[in-house]
Amino acid sequence: MARPSPLSGFPELLPADRIVEQRLLAELTRVFELHAFASVETRAIEPVEVLLGKGEVDKEVYAVRRLQAGPEDTSDPEWALHFDLTVPFARYVLEHAGHLQFPFRRYQVQKVWRGERPQEGRYREFTQADVDIVGADTLADHHDVEIVAVAADGFARLRDVLNFPPATLRVNNRKLAEGFYRGVGATDTAAVLQRIDKLGKIGPDKVGELLVAECGLTETAARTCLDLATITAYDESFVENVQALGVSDPLLDEGLEQLAAVVRGGGEVAPSVVKADLSIARGLDYYTGTVMETELAGYERLGSVASGGRYDKLASDGKRTYPGVGFSFGVTRMLVPIVAAGTVKASRQVPTCVLVAVDSEEDRATATSVATVLRRRGIPTEVAPKADKFGKQIRHADRRGIPYVWFCRADGDEVKDIRSGDQITADAASWTPPAEDLFPQVG
Amino acid sequence: MARPSPLSGFPELLPADRIVEQRLLAELTRVFELHAFASVETRAIEPVEVLLGKGEVDKEVYAVRRLQAGPEDTSDPEWALHFDLTVPFARYVLEHAGHLQFPFRRYQVQKVWRGERPQEGRYREFTQADVDIVGADTLADHHDVEIVAVAADGFARLRDVLNFPPATLRVNNRKLAEGFYRGVGATDTAAVLQRIDKLGKIGPDKVGELLVAECGLTETAARTCLDLATITAYDESFVENVQALGVSDPLLDEGLEQLAAVVRGGGEVAPSVVKADLSIARGLDYYTGTVMETELAGYERLGSVASGGRYDKLASDGKRTYPGVGFSFGVTRMLVPIVAAGTVKASRQVPTCVLVAVDSEEDRATATSVATVLRRRGIPTEVAPKADKFGKQIRHADRRGIPYVWFCRADGDEVKDIRSGDQITADAASWTPPAEDLFPQVG
Repeated sequence: MARPSPLSGFPELLPADRIVEQRLLAELTRVFELHAFASVETRAIEPVEVLLGKGEVDKEVYAVRRLQAGPEDTSDPEWALHFDLTVPFARYVLEHAGHLQFPFRRYQVQKVWRGERPQEGRYREFTQADVDIVGADTLADHHDVEIVAVAADGFARLRDVLNFPPATLRVNNRKLAEGFYRGVGATDTAAVLQRIDKLGKIGPDKVGELLVAECGLTETAARTCLDLATITAYDESFVENVQALGVSDPLLDEGLEQLAAVVRGGGEVAPSVVKADLSIARGLDYYTGTVMETELAGYERLGSVASGGRYDKLASDGKRTYPGVGFSFGVTRMLVPIVAAGTVKASRQVPTCVLVAVDSEEDRATATSVATVLRRRGIPTEVAPKADKFGKQIRHADRRGIPYVWFCRADGDEVKDIRSGDQITADAASWTPPAEDLFPQVG
Repeated sequence: MARPSPLSGFPELLPADRIVEQRLLAELTRVFELHAFASVETRAIEPVEVLLGKGEVDKEVYAVRRLQAGPEDTSDPEWALHFDLTVPFARYVLEHAGHLQFPFRRYQVQKVWRGERPQEGRYREFTQADVDIVGADTLADHHDVEIVAVAADGFARLRDVLNFPPATLRVNNRKLAEGFYRGVGATDTAAVLQRIDKLGKIGPDKVGELLVAECGLTETAARTCLDLATITAYDESFVENVQALGVSDPLLDEGLEQLAAVVRGGGEVAPSVVKADLSIARGLDYYTGTVMETELAGYERLGSVASGGRYDKLASDGKRTYPGVGFSFGVTRMLVPIVAAGTVKASRQVPTCVLVAVDSEEDRATATSVATVLRRRGIPTEVAPKADKFGKQIRHADRRGIPYVWFCRADGDEVKDIRSGDQITADAASWTPPAEDLFPQVG
């Protein structure tokens, strides 16, 4: 075949960037497991009607059918690739409910597919990493605090360990907003929320006009709602600021209490990551309490790279309802621009720590034996593919970023750090590289 | 929605079995990295004509198209889900050749899809774990030894660390077979190989008849070919046994030398795993040297769960040809029957090591603080979802297999091993569980 071109919207990483992705996923899944979430994977396809019936507003799905079924065969049910991990997880919970323990805490890292127009931060195939806690019939509010905590802990770890840009997790609460809007006299609180959701796009003046013209608010009420949306804080001080606006409603109080608990809990796990931001609306109408979105410093143009919230009905089989709270990391969405910018890099493009040089093809077995000993001791090792001159073998290592070259000598092996040029005698049974050289560093 | 039914051929694991899969993949990728293979992932779809033009004989692919494209839209190229990881990798090599260093060693762990009829060990969606070494223009024979070594090391590790059934990696060489058949007078050696490939199905007598009737061999020549196919050995002794058959051909000698090197190298890494088996033919006509398949003790009915070989042309862009040698672990294919039989199990169904009990909802913050301290110290921890009576909270842990329950006490916390009933005073800042309890054990 001729040299193929990249397929727009289907990013593929070169090995060095893939090492960054692997580390990112390893750090996130470690955090998920420390927070007691179990891994689940679901099949890639779901019935079309299930995918179109719920979930994201965007319904650009990829339909899937057996090629051999032929164009005339309409007997198969219609299937499509999942476009998120929430819809398949809801189906998984219903299908396997009898074998699961509730509340069920699961994480799920998989690819999803959307037929939308590709652009920076928007792909047709991309990886998400989701955490959700799902209850049978009921789910206590304090689980919202746990989800915000694991999300904050995840981003803090990416920042501290992999040098990722700092994240701000902006959190609001639907009850708080709904109660507040009711308290200023709104009858259709969802309509008010929809207008507030446009703040970033059209600004407060326009939104104020819409609130009066389309939602029937008084000028004063509209201004009070806009004032609410300006309130932000990394601690519970926002509660006083809201109360100072003089609106009162029992649902508002409930929302304030929940949001305060979330900000407090998030702050305990990772200071200066979780921020109450009363402008956050999140378009999706299935959220019923906590709502979250995430901005990365320096990458604000990407919009929210991770988001989530509380939904009172993840799934229902007619008999039982399963409420949940969850959060989704847009892995590809944040990773691809960050590695493209060189903000985070791997120190080499291979896992290899040592290249064992080969003196002559007749002596290859000697080099292979050294490699076997080093590997058994947990040191990633390659044997030089060709008994070239040593200079060429060293360049083979250098081009891949392999830090050490090993030379087999009858009177005692030697190992060279090709960065410093230092060369020492060494025994494969005991030589140990510095810990930071053992695997590629990412940062 | 009503309770959904499982979809045949698309296996989904419950959390405890998923822990086994996670460990299996972690052990395999660790081995791959120790052998200096870099991770690559490719997109899930390839052009239909590429998928149908090469690769496995089975062409039951799943076509993919944007649902919104509508049935009348035929402008899109036709795409389908990949059915293996070799075809996409060949395309990746061509597309990114300018950014890769050759010989290029990559591993790839991804799902693949085939529209074939589901049965035990045969799925429509399943995970493969592939390793390949690819050269630009040339690739030395000693890389075959490396592929067999990483395959043998992988299976040895699954056996030693996860208690998987022992594997036998049966290896043969196409040159050996071709040279031998030529040496006994065959003119169409590929036709002889195809008949020999039927040994397992129809037995030596029938194959002997076919060799005479369809391949034009003499009775004696046919018998000699059947004798060759009976030769097996875990060491180089097979060479003498072949030579004792009195056939001579330069290609045979080359094949003998290569297979001897492979068996020797495999034995050095993992004794009693790699076996020369001169009956192995492997149907696929793109193999040109080493061929391998794998049987698991007690699971012989599954057939080969992992296979691979040498191909002189993985890909070509008209200017350059890329020869390769590779091996593919059928992860789902071996895992699903093994966990279904209970041969390998996880010690619990959650990553959680400690459940922190909650005295009363007012004291939840105390429990959460303990959990935060334990997590920072690398101990997977859950806070009890409800301030039930302690007996009920302990049952919550017990049902999930969580080994420890933590009690927050004003006069000093205590932690209980709920398996033994032992309860001791403990400080979250210093208490450490035994290493084997920290994460689920698999075995």
